Amino acid sequence: MTLGEDRLVEWLRRRLRAQGEDLLGDDAARLDRAERWAVSVDQQIEGVHFPTGLDPRVVGARLVAVCLSDLAASGALPAYGFLTMALPRAYPAKRLLTGVLAACRRFTLTLAGGDTASAVQHLSLGLTVLGRRPPRGRWLTRGAARPGDGLWLGGAVGESALGRHLIAAGAGLVGRSVVLPERFSVSDRMLRAGRRAVRRHLAPVPQLGLGAALARRRRVAALDVSDGLAIDLHRLCAASGVGAELDSKRIPRPRELEPWAQLLGESDDELTLAGGEDYVLLFTLPKRVTRSPWPGCRRIGRITDRSDRGHSEVRLHGEAGSRLLAPSGWDHLR
Amino acid sequence: MTLGEDRLVEWLRRRLRAQGEDLLGDDAARLDRAERWAVSVDQQIEGVHFPTGLDPRVVGARLVAVCLSDLAASGALPAYGFLTMALPRAYPAKRLLTGVLAACRRFTLTLAGGDTASAVQHLSLGLTVLGRRPPRGRWLTRGAARPGDGLWLGGAVGESALGRHLIAAGAGLVGRSVVLPERFSVSDRMLRAGRRAVRRHLAPVPQLGLGAALARRRRVAALDVSDGLAIDLHRLCAASGVGAELDSKRIPRPRELEPWAQLLGESDDELTLAGGEDYVLLFTLPKRVTRSPWPGCRRIGRITDRSDRGHSEVRLHGEAGSRLLAPSGWDHLR
Repeated sequence: MTLGEDRLVEWLRRRLRAQGEDLLGDDAARLDRAERWAVSVDQQIEGVHFPTGLDPRVVGARLVAVCLSDLAASGALPAYGFLTMALPRAYPAKRLLTGVLAACRRFTLTLAGGDTASAVQHLSLGLTVLGRRPPRGRWLTRGAARPGDGLWLGGAVGESALGRHLIAAGAGLVGRSVVLPERFSVSDRMLRAGRRAVRRHLAPVPQLGLGAALARRRRVAALDVSDGLAIDLHRLCAASGVGAELDSKRIPRPRELEPWAQLLGESDDELTLAGGEDYVLLFTLPKRVTRSPWPGCRRIGRITDRSDRGHSEVRLHGEAGSRLLAPSGWDHLR
Repeated sequence: MTLGEDRLVEWLRRRLRAQGEDLLGDDAARLDRAERWAVSVDQQIEGVHFPTGLDPRVVGARLVAVCLSDLAASGALPAYGFLTMALPRAYPAKRLLTGVLAACRRFTLTLAGGDTASAVQHLSLGLTVLGRRPPRGRWLTRGAARPGDGLWLGGAVGESALGRHLIAAGAGLVGRSVVLPERFSVSDRMLRAGRRAVRRHLAPVPQLGLGAALARRRRVAALDVSDGLAIDLHRLCAASGVGAELDSKRIPRPRELEPWAQLLGESDDELTLAGGEDYVLLFTLPKRVTRSPWPGCRRIGRITDRSDRGHSEVRLHGEAGSRLLAPSGWDHLR
């Protein structure tokens, strides 16, 4: 979901609030007074979310991973999935389903229903996932951040965007191996980092363990970085009514990002701050917490008060000084 | 779901059964040991499920109604809905959502989440609905029919297909009124019946009251007639391991079906038996039940044993004698 879509959702929320119903606003909706279930839906559409011609098994697995990332951001554990498929004629549906089922097994999701249509021009998939609250866990929300809290990130950002650029430049899968275009004559280190970025883009891994671990803590705000660190941090701040400060040099970046960005004519800062699709969790913890709550997490800044004018501002501290960070990232409706 | 899709789903079920997980097979999946929730998903795709250019408000409401029909077939009452939208550029999304919200209010469904994508060529919608088991109710399934049971239908079939043919011949909505092409110079009775058929096609009504009433009875098999009476009856018989006999003259038909079919060059029997999209419930009740369990229901035949060769055969008794009825209906994957 992105900026233009945020506006559409805001319009929808006003309508729902007028009816006394507003469950929207977090990555997954929590149902039920007993709050046993979290539910989230996602789509993967050929030509929009992934390139045409991608191995159907990879497409299927990616759908499951992306959708489960919203459950991770809620602190829920995967339970049931419901799949919709709109298939072009002669599309290898069984290969697609093989990828879906493999990811379901890996992440302990039971495929429990679905719907199929065909004779469409582009493959279009939807997945609804239901997740359970872990034992002794609370639901995570975007709205729990308070000034002074530490701001944390579950892993490197910008790697998936690098992978996307490499795919656009000709990288791809041959069988299970990532192959980079031959015209890139780079070091072995860069080759390995490039392959890793392509794999990260095609086969992201939802941070379900981190989400469940955070759900057992006392006061955590969380969401998953799907559209980009900048825009997703702005969303967390807006939902919590706070601002934030980011320490540029503490943001975890993938290996060899700078030389790859240079080679591709991209800005490494842009990839890091606006790249999106890394599916790591962005979360806050009370100030006193200094130890990483899960392997690979890094404290990247802190939560501040809103600006004097009541805006949720995000300030980025870098080597060249500090500046206000605009929400940015890919906007489907622009 | 249709014949070719049935085969794909059968393949999928074999895979899931091998893992000890098979929740597929009924209109909605029942979750949870406590069996509190039923879940169903449906799609509406421009050019596949409805014609291009249809009023977005009608499209939105139709999606909700069609999806809730699966809950009706499970005996569940609507609770929460999750919407996915893939929108072409400049598509009037708010008008679409207005239709969705109006139908949600009408059928007491709370819209609780969703996902938006855009820049696609054809509008594509998905809806996941969660329904609750009614107080003192049981879940309805397809597999509960026994030889000797009465076979019942919740209302007329063939009307939606007539409406679809009229739309293909130029009928449409102007504002909220149905307008038929002027070249049809027919009686007022036929005009009214034609308008009604178009409306039935565009704005079906899920039989939620009937479903909940059936859920309070002792032994009921049920599904909704979405793909056509013949194919859906075959599915019920296959799931129950039984056969069936249909009494042709007892099948409720819409008014003026015969003259309209003649005028359109269609067979009224074909419309009735294979038309689809009427979204009435097809169900069985123990033999001794002779009173309609809900207004508008009609007993149309009875459940029989399987054939000597173990097949789930459906026999149609008509004026010209009796014949075996093949599964037929629209098949997306053929």
